Amino acid sequence: VEAGDQQALSVLMDPLHAADIADLLEQITQSDRADLIQLYDREFDGEILSELDESLREEVIGFLRPDVLAEAVRELESDDVVDIVEDLDEPHQEAILEHLEDADRVAVEQALAYPEDSAGRLMQRETAWAPEHWNVGQCIDHLRNAEELPEQFYHVILVDPKMRPLGNVTLGRIMSSHRDTRLSDIVEEMFQVIPVNQDEEDVAYAFNQYHLISAPVVDESERLVGVITIDDAMSVLDEEHEEDILRLAGVSEGSLSDTVSETARQRFPWLGVNLFTAILASVVIALFEGTIEKYVALAVLMPIVASMGGNAGTQTLTVAVRAIATKDLTGANVWRVIRREVFVGLLNGLAFAIVMGAVGVLWFGSMELGYVIAAAMVANLVVAGFAGTVVPVLLEKMGVDPALASGTFVTTVTDVVGFFAFLGLASIMLT
Amino acid sequence: VEAGDQQALSVLMDPLHAADIADLLEQITQSDRADLIQLYDREFDGEILSELDESLREEVIGFLRPDVLAEAVRELESDDVVDIVEDLDEPHQEAILEHLEDADRVAVEQALAYPEDSAGRLMQRETAWAPEHWNVGQCIDHLRNAEELPEQFYHVILVDPKMRPLGNVTLGRIMSSHRDTRLSDIVEEMFQVIPVNQDEEDVAYAFNQYHLISAPVVDESERLVGVITIDDAMSVLDEEHEEDILRLAGVSEGSLSDTVSETARQRFPWLGVNLFTAILASVVIALFEGTIEKYVALAVLMPIVASMGGNAGTQTLTVAVRAIATKDLTGANVWRVIRREVFVGLLNGLAFAIVMGAVGVLWFGSMELGYVIAAAMVANLVVAGFAGTVVPVLLEKMGVDPALASGTFVTTVTDVVGFFAFLGLASIMLT
Repeated sequence: VEAGDQQALSVLMDPLHAADIADLLEQITQSDRADLIQLYDREFDGEILSELDESLREEVIGFLRPDVLAEAVRELESDDVVDIVEDLDEPHQEAILEHLEDADRVAVEQALAYPEDSAGRLMQRETAWAPEHWNVGQCIDHLRNAEELPEQFYHVILVDPKMRPLGNVTLGRIMSSHRDTRLSDIVEEMFQVIPVNQDEEDVAYAFNQYHLISAPVVDESERLVGVITIDDAMSVLDEEHEEDILRLAGVSEGSLSDTVSETARQRFPWLGVNLFTAILASVVIALFEGTIEKYVALAVLMPIVASMGGNAGTQTLTVAVRAIATKDLTGANVWRVIRREVFVGLLNGLAFAIVMGAVGVLWFGSMELGYVIAAAMVANLVVAGFAGTVVPVLLEKMGVDPALASGTFVTTVTDVVGFFAFLGLASIMLT
Repeated sequence: VEAGDQQALSVLMDPLHAADIADLLEQITQSDRADLIQLYDREFDGEILSELDESLREEVIGFLRPDVLAEAVRELESDDVVDIVEDLDEPHQEAILEHLEDADRVAVEQALAYPEDSAGRLMQRETAWAPEHWNVGQCIDHLRNAEELPEQFYHVILVDPKMRPLGNVTLGRIMSSHRDTRLSDIVEEMFQVIPVNQDEEDVAYAFNQYHLISAPVVDESERLVGVITIDDAMSVLDEEHEEDILRLAGVSEGSLSDTVSETARQRFPWLGVNLFTAILASVVIALFEGTIEKYVALAVLMPIVASMGGNAGTQTLTVAVRAIATKDLTGANVWRVIRREVFVGLLNGLAFAIVMGAVGVLWFGSMELGYVIAAAMVANLVVAGFAGTVVPVLLEKMGVDPALASGTFVTTVTDVVGFFAFLGLASIMLT
């Protein structure tokens, strides 16, 4: 493909959707990317920029000729331009803004005035609205002659004389009703208004919880300023999930197209925290050096207790982190959930205590060792159930994202408790 | 609230959305749930059943009086009924089906004939369509007189005489165009058709990737049989994400309202697998019992090497699992990603080798011990980068969900390599 044949390239690329082209650009090497963009130059679609991973946008924008960039950006809707521009550094931002028409530039600049990750950044400013007293016929005639309509819209928003939204009427209902039906008679039952400063995470939650398709956005005086549609909410939901999954594993951000040193640097802090907690666990082990010297079997078996506790703790904390995110775990049921997880830990602790006790006895021929590992197993799985729920709940209370920090705390607890219980019991029982 | 005051309850509950009532039912205890439902009985909304967690549906259906249940179900759309019915056991299924009107029952039974988790189960059967040669006026007149329209629709689907979908026209475009505009002139650029047997995961991917709002569903002969809307796709996406997060932590399913023994049983298998791999790591340690007996410091430090490898491996595999799910990691770039992760492991391995080497020397006053732990650290983080990418890719190739099984394999590899490298090097260097 990279043989420099521009015509062949166009034939191959034209049937592809912008999202697929963006994926392609993300998957090839940096030099291939430069070549490809230079070849494909003249017909570069602004949508590709929208779809591209944030980390690559600056690079790709740097490759584009100014006139091509101008053309690409001018095709886009204002909320897509905001999405592109907000992550760029100053010079790149200005390069894009100066290519926009005046009205669009003002719109983008106003959107950028809202806080990052707020509904104001997410919304589109063009809305389809109608006064509450109109009927279907008036509404259709108005829409047919309106100049500034959103490219995609699914509801007409009914507003009062002060431009405060009163309800949504679906286009489907409008089209299937007679011209003299009053809009206020066919208004949707479900109606949610989004404050312009609301966090986008809460916006996505509302869409998902109430199955919204679009929702009007209002300012502090409850006046209509824009509309958010489900596709925007869906991409926020997708990003939030992605973030949660990666945070649970201690990966903060980044993409497959980052360089080796960028990625290494991103992963370093979490590994550093883990090193610190691992050393903490080692200090606990060091307390019992004398016992281990006498019974090497302890060194062989001790990682098992810690590892089981870590796994049980991770299971519990993942369930808790998710339940907090979906608002299924609240003040109302937190104690019941903790009690449940402790009993789950007890039950599985007993089951694995029997298995590991038997392994200890058979492998090392010592009843005492069997008892010790069995007791440590029960203790550690109970603690895992407790810490796995309490830690994320407390972090949430303290305003820290539980997905980000729970893992470290919980495995520190299970490591320390696991080693301490096992080696401590051993030093009492075996000496 | 549970004082038995039916009127007060209605006042409290009526303003709530069905989704919120379902959340409430999920958070209270089983006996409170029974009381609440009996009180709220007469006005039980079918939507609440839709919103309720699968694990609670049978319980709640059991509490409802047959006539209330019949009323509740009859209000629902056929795709919601399918969603409720498909997870129930036979007697509950029939209890619901017999309350439906004949046409609805046939529709539900036909949907159930499609494979589980396929587009056929997800779609609604009512569609708004128009012949390709119609103009806007004909289309509006038709919709105004049509009897069987979907409750929510956003596009009119253009079809050829054989009922094969040709394109989508948004309602917004129809309403803002003049009556004599041909529908085929205002058709959407973006158009995706979904085969009825397609997996719902792929359906959600297509909606997310191409920003679809609704898409026609076709059977084997490419005839239109239904339509899937973005809200259905959004809930599938949400479920898939949930599943991925939980699977990465070794939790297969379940909810906060399961009983203790159910939850313990669900978590047991993964802990069992972990026990097996932990024992494998212990066998490696046992190979070096003699060396540990002489140098107890090894027992103190060895969990650090394993833990760092496990964490680095988890970081890598989470990124890889996500990249596979979002189709960012494909055959085209797999070798480049593996090479990159190995180098990231090398870089962070070297960094932590210096730190840990210094800790080893300072703590135990032995240069040799410092060298050993440093070398083992580098080796284990490189292996973590390699295994963290290769394992999920291979699992995916073998048709196993990489989210489910990667964790075990990768941490087994890092545990075994970590202990073997550290203790093996120690037995050579220190003796």
